[in-house]
Amino acid sequence: MVVSWLDQLKWNEEGLLPVIAQDVVSGRILMQAWINREALLAAQNENRAVYWSRSRSELWRKGEESGHVQKLNGIYLDCDADSLIYEVEQIGGIACHTGRISCFYRKLENNAWQEIDSIIKEPKEIYK
Amino acid sequence: MVVSWLDQLKWNEEGLLPVIAQDVVSGRILMQAWINREALLAAQNENRAVYWSRSRSELWRKGEESGHVQKLNGIYLDCDADSLIYEVEQIGGIACHTGRISCFYRKLENNAWQEIDSIIKEPKEIYK
Repeated sequence: MVVSWLDQLKWNEEGLLPVIAQDVVSGRILMQAWINREALLAAQNENRAVYWSRSRSELWRKGEESGHVQKLNGIYLDCDADSLIYEVEQIGGIACHTGRISCFYRKLENNAWQEIDSIIKEPKEIYK
Repeated sequence: MVVSWLDQLKWNEEGLLPVIAQDVVSGRILMQAWINREALLAAQNENRAVYWSRSRSELWRKGEESGHVQKLNGIYLDCDADSLIYEVEQIGGIACHTGRISCFYRKLENNAWQEIDSIIKEPKEIYK
């Protein structure tokens, strides 16, 4: 299927591109993952963040198991057409599988990765 | 050289990882690029965003030519240890080589990429 706006993207040799999920309210970067054509089309059609799971080699509809769906507000593309942003509303306020608001919960301080976000909900309570 | 916090990162088969530059003031995502160990160490040591240019195969000290240096405020790591954020102060208010505030200046609207940011400074005025 030829889809003009999809074909303008510079997919890598694996047919993937990195995508950044950003919270539309707080501006917080929630996670970084990967998409292929199918994932991006699904995201557009279903109005939710859909990724390509490289480890499972399948579409990954964020929140399918946890309920922590990311409602899609906008899709942005960079100047090189090889990186995107999903602007999202994070349902449940938890993006990370560790139960934290964001996957980027570690900050480099004194030459060590320090945890700066606390766990909102234990993973065993999220994935039952 | 063994550097513990560097060795905790899951470098890909090319020894690279994606990094997102985010404006510390506005929260705006400015660009997405790549780093290797050398670039990340240089960023930490020099307190500015340093990337690895995949096209030129060399260290890329952002702003070296344009003056649009990104002062480094913080470095963040995600749960999988394979994606990072440079939290930066964007000198000159222009991150993109097209002369725009951010590289993510296109938004998907009506099945087309629409430009949402205007050019602050013409590239020929930036790169003389």
